[in-house]
Amino acid sequence: RDSARIADVSSMLNDMPPADVAHLIESSTPKLRHILWQLVDTEIEGEVIGELSEELQSLFLAEMDAAEVAVMTEGMADDDIADILQQLPGAVTQEVLASMDQQDRARIERVLTYSEDTAGGLMTTDAITIRARVTMDVVLRYLRRHSEIPSMTDSLIVVNSQDQYIGLLPLRTLLVSDPSASVREMMITDIDPIPANMPDTEVARLFERNDWVSAPVVDENRKLLGRITIDDVVDVIREDADHSFMSMAGLDEEQDTFAPILRTTPRRALWLGINLLTAFVAASVINLFQETIEKVVALAVLMPIVASMGGIAGTQTLTVLVRGIAVGQISRSNQGWLINRELAVGMINGFLWAAVVGVAASLWFNDWTLSLVIAIALIINLITAALTGATLPLFLNRIGIDPALAGGVILTTVTDVVGFLSFLGLATLFYAR
Amino acid sequence: RDSARIADVSSMLNDMPPADVAHLIESSTPKLRHILWQLVDTEIEGEVIGELSEELQSLFLAEMDAAEVAVMTEGMADDDIADILQQLPGAVTQEVLASMDQQDRARIERVLTYSEDTAGGLMTTDAITIRARVTMDVVLRYLRRHSEIPSMTDSLIVVNSQDQYIGLLPLRTLLVSDPSASVREMMITDIDPIPANMPDTEVARLFERNDWVSAPVVDENRKLLGRITIDDVVDVIREDADHSFMSMAGLDEEQDTFAPILRTTPRRALWLGINLLTAFVAASVINLFQETIEKVVALAVLMPIVASMGGIAGTQTLTVLVRGIAVGQISRSNQGWLINRELAVGMINGFLWAAVVGVAASLWFNDWTLSLVIAIALIINLITAALTGATLPLFLNRIGIDPALAGGVILTTVTDVVGFLSFLGLATLFYAR
Repeated sequence: RDSARIADVSSMLNDMPPADVAHLIESSTPKLRHILWQLVDTEIEGEVIGELSEELQSLFLAEMDAAEVAVMTEGMADDDIADILQQLPGAVTQEVLASMDQQDRARIERVLTYSEDTAGGLMTTDAITIRARVTMDVVLRYLRRHSEIPSMTDSLIVVNSQDQYIGLLPLRTLLVSDPSASVREMMITDIDPIPANMPDTEVARLFERNDWVSAPVVDENRKLLGRITIDDVVDVIREDADHSFMSMAGLDEEQDTFAPILRTTPRRALWLGINLLTAFVAASVINLFQETIEKVVALAVLMPIVASMGGIAGTQTLTVLVRGIAVGQISRSNQGWLINRELAVGMINGFLWAAVVGVAASLWFNDWTLSLVIAIALIINLITAALTGATLPLFLNRIGIDPALAGGVILTTVTDVVGFLSFLGLATLFYAR
Repeated sequence: RDSARIADVSSMLNDMPPADVAHLIESSTPKLRHILWQLVDTEIEGEVIGELSEELQSLFLAEMDAAEVAVMTEGMADDDIADILQQLPGAVTQEVLASMDQQDRARIERVLTYSEDTAGGLMTTDAITIRARVTMDVVLRYLRRHSEIPSMTDSLIVVNSQDQYIGLLPLRTLLVSDPSASVREMMITDIDPIPANMPDTEVARLFERNDWVSAPVVDENRKLLGRITIDDVVDVIREDADHSFMSMAGLDEEQDTFAPILRTTPRRALWLGINLLTAFVAASVINLFQETIEKVVALAVLMPIVASMGGIAGTQTLTVLVRGIAVGQISRSNQGWLINRELAVGMINGFLWAAVVGVAASLWFNDWTLSLVIAIALIINLITAALTGATLPLFLNRIGIDPALAGGVILTTVTDVVGFLSFLGLATLFYAR
């Protein structure tokens, strides 16, 4: 009975598009995903694993030996194979490469020489090249001799006898051109090929801005190495966006929603530990003012308001800056304007909410000194928040630290410390009179 | 002198690809972007505005009259025209439509009937259709009669005499097939067309999973309406990701990094106001325990630690859930597992950090009661944070509220209230003895 049902599930699974199988596995709990993976047919294993996140790829790869990996990678695109090989121990990678034929091995090794997050690591070597001197008619006949044209081929790549990139012949052009016209007459030459060492994020920006479906990749001598296709670029865009989103909560390593407890806990613990340290810093600021608080307990009631408003305002500024940096909108020429704008917004909101909180505090505690102290502290903290939120990500970015990950922790430490210090410090001054 | 320099800038600007001009305008301060927009040639205005964010589109459109809009939209893709018309006042839209020829107007009106965030609003009507009975040779000759094939055409769409969708003939197939083969033999029929009312986020998921370059859109009778292309899908993916990222900081309306002070301030003020209300709720909890704090001032020093650790842990859980919901990984069948995992992680981290904080507190204040109280409160708050962070986004999503926007505010209110309540409440009990 049970084995019949498993056979049902298995045949259902193997009738689904590989990307859907991958999505199902990613949406499954740890136990279930291992069962599902066992049920995937060997023929589509490669396609399925190519669609999984890196975290899950390495999970399943850890259970396979070199022979199994070699069988699985047969027929996979070379960029996907390279992605997989990069996650295996060096010895296993060598074994898998050794089992391939000469030509495939050379292609894969070419992709493997480039880091995963560059154009070279993103490219496939699977491209149709033509010469400039031939006619459209010759090209059409040449294509017809292929049993298949690589997927996402929107252009043929024109190269010279040294295999150097010259231009592109879009299929759209080929199909409407006079058969006797030459490639040289019809090709596009105003698209710059992508250098193999360009970071993948920059590649994604080029694709987005120019609405490309595929683009050629060249080495430093303009020799054609391969091409990048939009499907892989979409993955880069998705991963980058994901990474920024998760990093803001310190979850930069957490791609797998259904990671088991033992894998999730240490990462979360680390982040909590870092934040605990900053919380103790804030607490030690409060500690300086024990006497004042003893005298005016209302200070303890109101002090979280000053700190939290600073944190909220600063996080808004930080978020705008982090996104601006990520989409490449911020440069030296406009960052000054942006810092000034944030300062102005912080000041206006500081005065606005200082008035509101001041009035509320005086109504609540019937104490105009308290009211004045919290109003001034709030203005100081919102201006500090704007200044920190605007300059910190620019600084972190310049020294090569991810502002999405580190920015929030540092920012809230600053707004907590300045919030408590200004509020309790001013109170100590004012109530001493 | 100045006018010569402006002419230089102008010619430089109009030699750039329209998407780069748009990026330059989006990266410019308010004054400069108006000057740049003035310098853009009328011929490329349409293409440039099509690449701008909605916020900037409406900014520039507000300064144009119907005649100018009509001139600008000439030669633009119909989905881009529809996007622009949707931002104009109704009367202006009618005027622009009236100035178009019959056929164009009908096409645009068809797109306009669908909401912007559906497949219908995303599609272009610009598609090449063929019949199933013809041969490859006929198709090739038919294509050659076109002066141009629409961009992002990777497949021709096969329809019947009622204009209903039957299948797709990829150009890749056309180019390698026997010229005498019929379209019926060679076409793909296993790709379901996209219904016009499908939400754009779902369209994006289909494109991502199936690696499509373009896909046909049909009405409820399978009648072909148009097609969606990957460049517009990439925009949807980018906008969705952007929206989630910005929403977590309450910036869901802030697409424009360089918005002027007067536009930025009110939005930020609103968010600060909402958070101020929740801060007052937390403060009123502290207010209940004035007497206890007066007795043991160290409570005031340590209480932000309990609240902030809860906020940090809860935000992590919330972020994982919000992302899981956004990528469609979470369903009724696995959400129970996820809630349990988060609870377990929360508990383990609760006990771990309770021990650390407990020891630290006793060393600092030499008070074992305080140490015990903060440890228990921390455990309670981290478990509360896990439970709230996991269930709240599921609940908000079910009742149609964006969990990325509302989740954080509600969550931190809960963790603040529970943090202060458990810590100060327990302290009141323990120190009363």
